Amino acid sequence: MKESLAKELAVLRQMGIEPGLDIVRVGARPDDLAYEQGALRRFDGLGIAARVFAFPEDISQEDFTAEFRKINDSGSVRGILLFRPLPKHLDGDSIGDMIRPAKDIDCMSPFNAAKVFLEGGKGGFAPCTPAAVMEILAHYGVDLAGKNVVVVGRSPVVGRPLAMLMLARNATVTVCHTKTQNLEEICKNADIVVAAAGRPKTITPACVSPKSIVVDVGINADENGKLCGDADYGAILPIVSMISPVPGGVGAVTTSILAAHVLRAANKLAEA
Amino acid sequence: MKESLAKELAVLRQMGIEPGLDIVRVGARPDDLAYEQGALRRFDGLGIAARVFAFPEDISQEDFTAEFRKINDSGSVRGILLFRPLPKHLDGDSIGDMIRPAKDIDCMSPFNAAKVFLEGGKGGFAPCTPAAVMEILAHYGVDLAGKNVVVVGRSPVVGRPLAMLMLARNATVTVCHTKTQNLEEICKNADIVVAAAGRPKTITPACVSPKSIVVDVGINADENGKLCGDADYGAILPIVSMISPVPGGVGAVTTSILAAHVLRAANKLAEA
Repeated sequence: MKESLAKELAVLRQMGIEPGLDIVRVGARPDDLAYEQGALRRFDGLGIAARVFAFPEDISQEDFTAEFRKINDSGSVRGILLFRPLPKHLDGDSIGDMIRPAKDIDCMSPFNAAKVFLEGGKGGFAPCTPAAVMEILAHYGVDLAGKNVVVVGRSPVVGRPLAMLMLARNATVTVCHTKTQNLEEICKNADIVVAAAGRPKTITPACVSPKSIVVDVGINADENGKLCGDADYGAILPIVSMISPVPGGVGAVTTSILAAHVLRAANKLAEA
Repeated sequence: MKESLAKELAVLRQMGIEPGLDIVRVGARPDDLAYEQGALRRFDGLGIAARVFAFPEDISQEDFTAEFRKINDSGSVRGILLFRPLPKHLDGDSIGDMIRPAKDIDCMSPFNAAKVFLEGGKGGFAPCTPAAVMEILAHYGVDLAGKNVVVVGRSPVVGRPLAMLMLARNATVTVCHTKTQNLEEICKNADIVVAAAGRPKTITPACVSPKSIVVDVGINADENGKLCGDADYGAILPIVSMISPVPGGVGAVTTSILAAHVLRAANKLAEA
């Protein structure tokens, strides 16, 4: 991916287009900061400009809306990444309704969400994390047509959009969650399990078989405070066909997807 | 439902609000005409005004956009139902982007689609057919939490939104389609099968068990030209726990949902 991003960047620059990323952060949640650092490093490595607009956690709706509007309305061709969820007193929906779809590289706008929902994201921006899962499977040549895929987790940022991207690739998709009653059996019968539950050891050895491909989206702290995914990696690795690690798996690819979306946004915005 | 609709209508009229339905039809497809007749009959029975704007199948994009804009921009509190799909030369997306979300009683707008996708439709309008499926299951007291639901069909108008409504009710949801490889087994293991494939005899006796609940969304013509659903009704009825007939099942409830949405739209538009 890094090579193809460098090529795309060169093409844009030849056209006089200078892409960039505007990160908007409210407060300083550790997971937001970790993602931000990873993104800044990746963008630095790629030579794409990235800057951070950080606001205090107690910023008022009025002030935040005004600040966001300035970033959104600027004539630049920079994509915008807003960390979510926002603090509870802020209305994320109104920001999603406001963001220009062409700057909306992580799918906050209803226009991009509807495209993911109804068309598997064609022509819009899917959220970066589900897009990274698809990229990993494509990279390893996993053909999804007719495969039974289980997505564990139904969040609006990962589980639901991922289910739609999988459907668009002709997978048969099952969405499981905390209310699912026979998770082990459902996962064990699947060809591919994507763990996006946000809870360590959600995917146990009883959930997998030798044919299983496991993609782990989870970013959690284990009982010793160490970074871990949703799958019990050590116990599962000897059983399955493939499993993505945490750290170094989906998260690492997500920042590359973010960069790809930033380049595409610059192109769209320059055309508009 | 009829009683509760009559009560709501009376309340709206006391507030001086007169709800209504604007049906927009391009061409004269038999299934559109059948739906239209059913809706007009139902609205007549409820005493709610409904009118039809019918346009020739070869209307130009420019003319259709202008006509649609007039209906959409009128100051009335009437909901709009546009029959889809539109003829191929017309751009349905641009109409969906244009329709006022509060008039959009069948979920064409990306704002309503995103609400269905991300929040199970809360505060917006879900498409009427999937909403009718949920109404039927609720009417018969079927608790969906933790149940395994299989949706056969992934259309943007039925299968996908229905999957999201089911998720919002805590069902574990599997979406199957033409590329699914083991449909019979997947359906047979489910608690509830919703058939929305648009093909007669998609659901065979091999797809069901005595515990199965089957909801049939299909509207097809069988080999003798008779109206039939997606399930092989006669063969399945003796096996399953419950099955909805075609005609007289989902379609009949859909026009009641349409009326409920028209009343809600009138209320929203009067408030705005």
